[in-house]
Amino acid sequence: MKNYYICLLGIIFIISYSHAKVINKEFDICREILGEELIREIGSYESVKDEILKYVIEGDFKGKTYNELAKFVDKFGARPSGTEALENSIDYIIERTREEDIDNIVTEELEVPHWSRGKEKITMLQPRIKNISVLGLGRSISTPPEGITAEVVVIRNFDELENSKEEDIRGKIVIYDPVYTTYGETGIYRTQGASRAAAKGAIASLVRSITPFSIYSPHTGAQTYDENVTKIPIGAITLEDADLIRRITKRGERVVLKIEMISSYDTKISRNTIIDLKGREKPESLVIVSGHIDSWDVGQGAMDDGGGIFISWAAPVILKRLNLQPRRTVRSIFWTAEELGLVGAYAYEEKHRDENHNINFIMESDVGTFAPLGLTVAGNQESRCIIGEILKLFKSINASALIETNSPGPDIAVITNTGIPGAGLYNANEKYFWFHHTEGDTMNVEDAHELDLGSAFWTAVAYIIADISVDIPR
Amino acid sequence: MKNYYICLLGIIFIISYSHAKVINKEFDICREILGEELIREIGSYESVKDEILKYVIEGDFKGKTYNELAKFVDKFGARPSGTEALENSIDYIIERTREEDIDNIVTEELEVPHWSRGKEKITMLQPRIKNISVLGLGRSISTPPEGITAEVVVIRNFDELENSKEEDIRGKIVIYDPVYTTYGETGIYRTQGASRAAAKGAIASLVRSITPFSIYSPHTGAQTYDENVTKIPIGAITLEDADLIRRITKRGERVVLKIEMISSYDTKISRNTIIDLKGREKPESLVIVSGHIDSWDVGQGAMDDGGGIFISWAAPVILKRLNLQPRRTVRSIFWTAEELGLVGAYAYEEKHRDENHNINFIMESDVGTFAPLGLTVAGNQESRCIIGEILKLFKSINASALIETNSPGPDIAVITNTGIPGAGLYNANEKYFWFHHTEGDTMNVEDAHELDLGSAFWTAVAYIIADISVDIPR
Repeated sequence: MKNYYICLLGIIFIISYSHAKVINKEFDICREILGEELIREIGSYESVKDEILKYVIEGDFKGKTYNELAKFVDKFGARPSGTEALENSIDYIIERTREEDIDNIVTEELEVPHWSRGKEKITMLQPRIKNISVLGLGRSISTPPEGITAEVVVIRNFDELENSKEEDIRGKIVIYDPVYTTYGETGIYRTQGASRAAAKGAIASLVRSITPFSIYSPHTGAQTYDENVTKIPIGAITLEDADLIRRITKRGERVVLKIEMISSYDTKISRNTIIDLKGREKPESLVIVSGHIDSWDVGQGAMDDGGGIFISWAAPVILKRLNLQPRRTVRSIFWTAEELGLVGAYAYEEKHRDENHNINFIMESDVGTFAPLGLTVAGNQESRCIIGEILKLFKSINASALIETNSPGPDIAVITNTGIPGAGLYNANEKYFWFHHTEGDTMNVEDAHELDLGSAFWTAVAYIIADISVDIPR
Repeated sequence: MKNYYICLLGIIFIISYSHAKVINKEFDICREILGEELIREIGSYESVKDEILKYVIEGDFKGKTYNELAKFVDKFGARPSGTEALENSIDYIIERTREEDIDNIVTEELEVPHWSRGKEKITMLQPRIKNISVLGLGRSISTPPEGITAEVVVIRNFDELENSKEEDIRGKIVIYDPVYTTYGETGIYRTQGASRAAAKGAIASLVRSITPFSIYSPHTGAQTYDENVTKIPIGAITLEDADLIRRITKRGERVVLKIEMISSYDTKISRNTIIDLKGREKPESLVIVSGHIDSWDVGQGAMDDGGGIFISWAAPVILKRLNLQPRRTVRSIFWTAEELGLVGAYAYEEKHRDENHNINFIMESDVGTFAPLGLTVAGNQESRCIIGEILKLFKSINASALIETNSPGPDIAVITNTGIPGAGLYNANEKYFWFHHTEGDTMNVEDAHELDLGSAFWTAVAYIIADISVDIPR
């Protein structure tokens, strides 16, 4: 059941994110809602905002986010849920934070899934021998050791699958070859494809990687099995091979594949990491910035979500360095085990449910840390008005956009869905899905200046929300 | 010696190509040089040009170049020099041409190199275990079966290598990590890197892939060994791993790699393929269109150079279908074994040297078949004036640019260097090197409409040059 919920949450997040509209026009109404005094108060943060931006973009912190991120991902590489690399990386970032004289650090243990990729190989046997690059999807079962050899049927969408005769699917390998529209819309073939195909009698399934662009790059990702359906192996192939196989079958030729995919699955203990810069007046009241520290097992997890981690790490560090202690506590959370189902976020929400009234505002960066453009905000109109007024301060770096959303980030949606206001980093991430969940998710995607802008923006926004006289209403 | 020449030719081609200037201003002088009568004559081809464009872009040939290319590359895949796949693909295209009622087809046998990739694997052993994706370069020798394990030294350019102390290089693996500027400028680290490193005592070498963009994509390519230097293995790694290793070594850490690269090398017999659409008045006079039919062993060779082959195949086919028989012969040549050193082109030039005076004009498409923009032209001013006047006819499809060059294409430079005028397809190929010599060189790079434009343009230009009253002067 939980898996369904996770999946649904993810989809709602993505769809609402991609269909969201800029609501700057709301600002006119906001003038009435907020009143002149609060508007003046927010405007008075111009100088502290300038101080933070200057320190990060031109001052001593210039290039630091990029360098810290690079040292981190170069040292540990990919950090999949359940691995030693992930736990070592958590130890490292705690140690690194202590070096900044920040000691309010706790970790909270939880059980996390540990899905481990073994040998993966697909060979096209007919109409000719060809290697087909593949990345198995998270939680996929293994094929038998001798592999699965079968004819392929190429399916555009679930309607086509449902309308297929069972004899056309039974005993075959279903390849989903959907037209990419958005990650949310197209991603359902990855997350639900195995069970939907198995329900029609398929013995394995493959999905065209969820991306608009490829240089023969397979994209992995999570998937879940329905409870009452036979589990079949599922992997992602490249756009290039999906198109090749579709063209061949369209010409009336049979395509036969041999799929060998071995993986293992168990659980391990991991930790959410919580770093507090205590507030000077209302330390129990929290403004949370966050990202997830685990990654997929390909690439370095520099973009997903190393960048999110390090701009969220930068917030308390920069405030500490600048001796800026806001009224409320600024808390950094590094969620664990996001990739296999927001596992860290669910555990945190459950553990802290009784104190959730203390969360004044919660932020997450998990769709890239390219140049910041503003925030995607979940909350009522008054809360959006406050955030919108704060965002006006960031016109100089072109980061004033406010986008309304129901789900500002996959992890924090677990919390904002209970009515707590929150925001995601809206950034210039047009190419995000080119690299997402591939070997190409490395430091090469990151840009030092854009990360500086991100850290400066993230820190200044968190500081202002944590320091203003009013709470963010819910 | 020949290898040097090949390499030099390639570099001259690329450098002159990238530094060339549009010389439309020459057209004013051209009016005097050509005279009103010839200008009027060239202008009179407007209607036949329209007929060809209409037939290919909107008529029965619409989509045909893409579909024929897709059927071809899907059927044979990669076609490396010396393989059965290449020879079968030659048989297929001959058969396919005969089906178009074109029977003037000959093949000319020649000996070609057959370098065959075996197991290739690089593992970073220090500072941590990581797989490093690699593609060995053409003609690279193998490592010993147990591999080569050594520390790495990262080198930016040949100056840095020459200025290094021999003890810093001896016994090490040299990684060339040049800043990408142009293919020609940066490609020398691929083509000459092994011998230059070996001369300083290196035991293996790797080169950052020659591309401005990557999704963890290694790019293979040709390289040659100097005669009096120890041969050491050489391969290409991704931008991502080159940057990773540079960052780690810059932090003062040792990087140790284990390189295992096995390959074999012998020679085989292949064929140049020559298809003639005989001229009605001067059949001995040739207007040649061409591309190379061999490819690298990764991807499908759809872009390099399947597209060049199929727009050159289209030229005689379209003219035959439209019953357009020009004064001179239109000859299509599909060069073999280009990738390992223009081997087919050299053999053709040698075999036909006595009849080279019959080549009126020679064209080649080998830098992509994206939207055509015009031609890169080698020839004297008068010849450029004639070609420029012809190109004016293609303003409607935005393909009127004339770029002056010394080397209009790698294969045909072997011939144009003897003073024969020729041209390459100038096209919107900004992303060409993103896919070049990678697994990503597939039909996904190709666009049906752009290929239609290319076939229409290529055919109409060849027809007009083959039909006008004057020869192209040399």
